[in-house]
Amino acid sequence: MSPTRPLRLLAISGSLRAKSANTSVLLALQAQASAEVTVTLFRDLAELPHFNPDLDVAPVPAAVTAWRKAVESADALVFSSPEYAHGVPGSLKNALDWLVSHEAFSNKPVAIINARPGAEHALASLRETLTVMNARLLDAACVTLPLTSNALDAPALLLLPAVRGQLEAVLVALRGLAEH
Amino acid sequence: MSPTRPLRLLAISGSLRAKSANTSVLLALQAQASAEVTVTLFRDLAELPHFNPDLDVAPVPAAVTAWRKAVESADALVFSSPEYAHGVPGSLKNALDWLVSHEAFSNKPVAIINARPGAEHALASLRETLTVMNARLLDAACVTLPLTSNALDAPALLLLPAVRGQLEAVLVALRGLAEH
Repeated sequence: MSPTRPLRLLAISGSLRAKSANTSVLLALQAQASAEVTVTLFRDLAELPHFNPDLDVAPVPAAVTAWRKAVESADALVFSSPEYAHGVPGSLKNALDWLVSHEAFSNKPVAIINARPGAEHALASLRETLTVMNARLLDAACVTLPLTSNALDAPALLLLPAVRGQLEAVLVALRGLAEH
Repeated sequence: MSPTRPLRLLAISGSLRAKSANTSVLLALQAQASAEVTVTLFRDLAELPHFNPDLDVAPVPAAVTAWRKAVESADALVFSSPEYAHGVPGSLKNALDWLVSHEAFSNKPVAIINARPGAEHALASLRETLTVMNARLLDAACVTLPLTSNALDAPALLLLPAVRGQLEAVLVALRGLAEH
């Protein structure tokens, strides 16, 4: 990639809640990013139709095109997702289902910010899916935050040194992409 | 349950394709069921909104109410699902997300018909989710069919003795519910 433009990260929250802890984590990452990194939150997962191979023919639904373009134009993806019933939220998995075998996704660098300890089933399942989709999981950019509450918004999260430290580690690892 | 009415099964396909092999399997089960068993295919998974806790307040979306009522009025659920990228299809997981902690689901007898060997990641993930949701997985009603092609419709499936035999085993196991 060109050294003259910022690194473009697309942040994807697995929760559609207005006050989602996962979305807050991604907004905190956005606030903490320096000038060389832009973090864009993708807010339209709920606009995607349910994946159906019969619909995956030209012209594909507009929301699918928008999602694929957002992924395509990002240098890396950053996920943060809750666990629902020991699995990945259906809405997040549905978004991934629309990217299976899509060339924009192959070898795409990916970070995962797990908001809290536990939730290991969904995390393992998400990693398995991303791996089989040929994403490039950046282990140094995959962290688990020590949150025990859903109540903190992005500014409150950034007051916690442990959270700031982990988010900085994610950004450092992702900035490494620009140097190769 | 009353011995005077048929056993009511709700069949749920994890694929929205018009010519889905999983839907064909469930239609074959429906065709093979005897008079004491009715199999209803739930066809509206794609009508469900993406799960959002903010939407799960009265009045909930009409499609969610219809889905919960269909589950509630069934004596047992029968799933058949493809595997997408080593996971459960997002649209199916989304439907389950709407049932988490919903009393209609607790202790609900469940059968899973795996259409073909392989697909072990999605099957394990589906079982994990159903188990943590307190469904009652009926092991004798969980089978894997020996299909190697997606091309067969329900009448063609019923010409295969191995498929008929497995579907009959599912029905026998489910009929056992009526006797307890």
